[in-house]
Amino acid sequence: MSQSNRTDHIRLTSHPVPGATHEFPIRWGAPTARERGPIIGTVSRPQDRNVIGTHGGSYAVYRALAVSSGALDPIRRPDLTNTHPAATVGPFSQWMDPERIVALDPWGHLVAENFRAEIAEGIDIRPSIAITRARLDLPEIQAALAAKRLEPDGEFVHASGSVSVVKIAIDPVWYLPGIAQRFGTSVTNLRRALFEQTAGMFPELVTRPDLQVFLPPIGGMTVYLFGDVTKLPDHRTKITCRVHDECNGSDVFGSDICTCRPYLIHGIEECARAGQAGGLGVIVYNRKEGRALGEVTKFLVYNARKRQEAGDDAAAYFERTECVAGVQDARFQQLMPDVIHWLGLKRIDRFISMSDMKYDALTGQGIEIVERVAIPDDMIPADAHVEIAAKKAAGYFSPDQKPEDLIASGRPLEKY
Amino acid sequence: MSQSNRTDHIRLTSHPVPGATHEFPIRWGAPTARERGPIIGTVSRPQDRNVIGTHGGSYAVYRALAVSSGALDPIRRPDLTNTHPAATVGPFSQWMDPERIVALDPWGHLVAENFRAEIAEGIDIRPSIAITRARLDLPEIQAALAAKRLEPDGEFVHASGSVSVVKIAIDPVWYLPGIAQRFGTSVTNLRRALFEQTAGMFPELVTRPDLQVFLPPIGGMTVYLFGDVTKLPDHRTKITCRVHDECNGSDVFGSDICTCRPYLIHGIEECARAGQAGGLGVIVYNRKEGRALGEVTKFLVYNARKRQEAGDDAAAYFERTECVAGVQDARFQQLMPDVIHWLGLKRIDRFISMSDMKYDALTGQGIEIVERVAIPDDMIPADAHVEIAAKKAAGYFSPDQKPEDLIASGRPLEKY
Repeated sequence: MSQSNRTDHIRLTSHPVPGATHEFPIRWGAPTARERGPIIGTVSRPQDRNVIGTHGGSYAVYRALAVSSGALDPIRRPDLTNTHPAATVGPFSQWMDPERIVALDPWGHLVAENFRAEIAEGIDIRPSIAITRARLDLPEIQAALAAKRLEPDGEFVHASGSVSVVKIAIDPVWYLPGIAQRFGTSVTNLRRALFEQTAGMFPELVTRPDLQVFLPPIGGMTVYLFGDVTKLPDHRTKITCRVHDECNGSDVFGSDICTCRPYLIHGIEECARAGQAGGLGVIVYNRKEGRALGEVTKFLVYNARKRQEAGDDAAAYFERTECVAGVQDARFQQLMPDVIHWLGLKRIDRFISMSDMKYDALTGQGIEIVERVAIPDDMIPADAHVEIAAKKAAGYFSPDQKPEDLIASGRPLEKY
Repeated sequence: MSQSNRTDHIRLTSHPVPGATHEFPIRWGAPTARERGPIIGTVSRPQDRNVIGTHGGSYAVYRALAVSSGALDPIRRPDLTNTHPAATVGPFSQWMDPERIVALDPWGHLVAENFRAEIAEGIDIRPSIAITRARLDLPEIQAALAAKRLEPDGEFVHASGSVSVVKIAIDPVWYLPGIAQRFGTSVTNLRRALFEQTAGMFPELVTRPDLQVFLPPIGGMTVYLFGDVTKLPDHRTKITCRVHDECNGSDVFGSDICTCRPYLIHGIEECARAGQAGGLGVIVYNRKEGRALGEVTKFLVYNARKRQEAGDDAAAYFERTECVAGVQDARFQQLMPDVIHWLGLKRIDRFISMSDMKYDALTGQGIEIVERVAIPDDMIPADAHVEIAAKKAAGYFSPDQKPEDLIASGRPLEKY
């Protein structure tokens, strides 16, 4: 396997060819998938590429390990037989507006259908969205049934406690001019920051201004739909929605320092109920661990909070994150509304979130929010009152509209 | 904010300076942190850098958005006051062996202590590991207490049902010569595959053979320790361990197509019991969604499995993944044992996993496994028997040592 003496040329970056036209141009926001053009992030036929980066987000690094160890043939193409969506989503008018959706490919689940001929010819076009069906078994939903807060209906919520859903995985596909506009900066400034702040990831961000689409190596999102998904295009359908940002420590392990899993579970219960009542429930799960600062930063912040001289308190909650990370929050809800546009939604009847940042991002993008639903007090874990108090004081929605006073204090490290 | 007319030079990649010596050389496997040298992935002082890539994995992309939008000062340094580990781990002799640990920085939690002077002088050295404490509230653990499978002891498992743990977030730090050795390939071949298969991420993989350490933009891992962590260095301590690879659909949402959350929960219960009995429980959670192929690929595979002419069956279980992804599994357990070495462990008394790949990787790295613990039959969800049957047939451990026949079949898409 040793290739140390290979002499074939490695191209460090590419440059636009003056006067050349792209074989597969991308016209972001065009009315059909074929007019928009396919997203081609192949690494096996560089001449076909029309984006910066490649498919699979971070997992391209694992694909590289598979190739380097001989486990994966680098020119292997996916066989997409039978992989097509298990439910219909779209097309919606929002897909044809280059400013409404800038962070995902609205046609990403339909590539096998729209580019059948090109794929048959050997062009490496891959889906960036996949839609399947699932049944969810959650102990908290079993408890809701036992407590008669939820009743089985046999279609959406089963007597066993399992819940039928459509679920959708979405990888990020960034249209750089649209991303720059959302962040109020120039495309040049955005490209340069993406290149320099990642220590030089993808020189094509700098050398290829003609390539306007970037597949960033970050986690994407998953959407869970509850109820009859054929009602998605009907604007009379009542929508219950929670947009949830990943928190592994709570979502999976039930850490009691924050409200993440309890609020997510409350959202799932509300979504299941919405589906049963003839509406639709929508959970969006974004891979943005630790406010998109990562879990190492998050745990450093926990320690700094718990060791403050005055103890863990709400008044210094955001300040501690800023000391360690330089910024209070890196989730940037500016891109979050894209998935709501992608689902064709113009209104959320019940928004299961107290976040003012999420609310502002959605309403700023023209999505009406009728009602905001706070986490029930009895679902707030013991050590999470510091978080809730700090967030309310900072402008989070609270049904009583009273800014929480900042007396909440958390457990010190020696009391775990 | 427009910077489109800025003319200052952008360096597309760097090259080694002939004859120059590094100010901060890295001697992987050296006996102390100071002899090994700091890992410096700063983007604000390029002259200090001694690695390829930067800190925070994928989240560097979000930091770049923060900078481009003006929310984060690009030269801001973290204030590490009070962030030091909330429990002691190491040092262990394994840290001083350049072949034992190749995928993380064993000194990564101790940078504020070991490089205090350099940090004070303005060198941007950041932790890649953070250690904190937590209490876990899991409904399944409450159920185990109600069923008297677990009893509260007031120290590790509380009457409320919450469980005290030490938890550790670890970002990947790759020593490329060691990674190449684990995968049986040359460093040149590995570097080239990492560069080419990611569509050109980090030209320094090619241009800087003198930089041997890479901070890949992928998710890391989290370790949960149950019991008295001061017993970690005592080789008589009985160790119960589960190494779990992320499966968001099951771990968070309880999807019934696989055994991921049930097996994880079984591992947590066993770990809690081990801690109570005077041993230690160790859960390792690796961010390797969908066998490190990502969730889009995973959902495409689900559809292809469910739509096969013969229905979803165990005989074709692995084949469907290979059709879509080109490889059955990209998790590559070769790097997984590093964290067990980092914890100083030479033996796992109870290994809560049936995976032959994990078993082979650990024992191949000299870690003894005394007993393997299968998932209890009554924890296997309805639709997950296909997975278990296929895995047993492919060589997974099974306590009865009988290869499962392949008759298990799963729910078709229209029956969700």
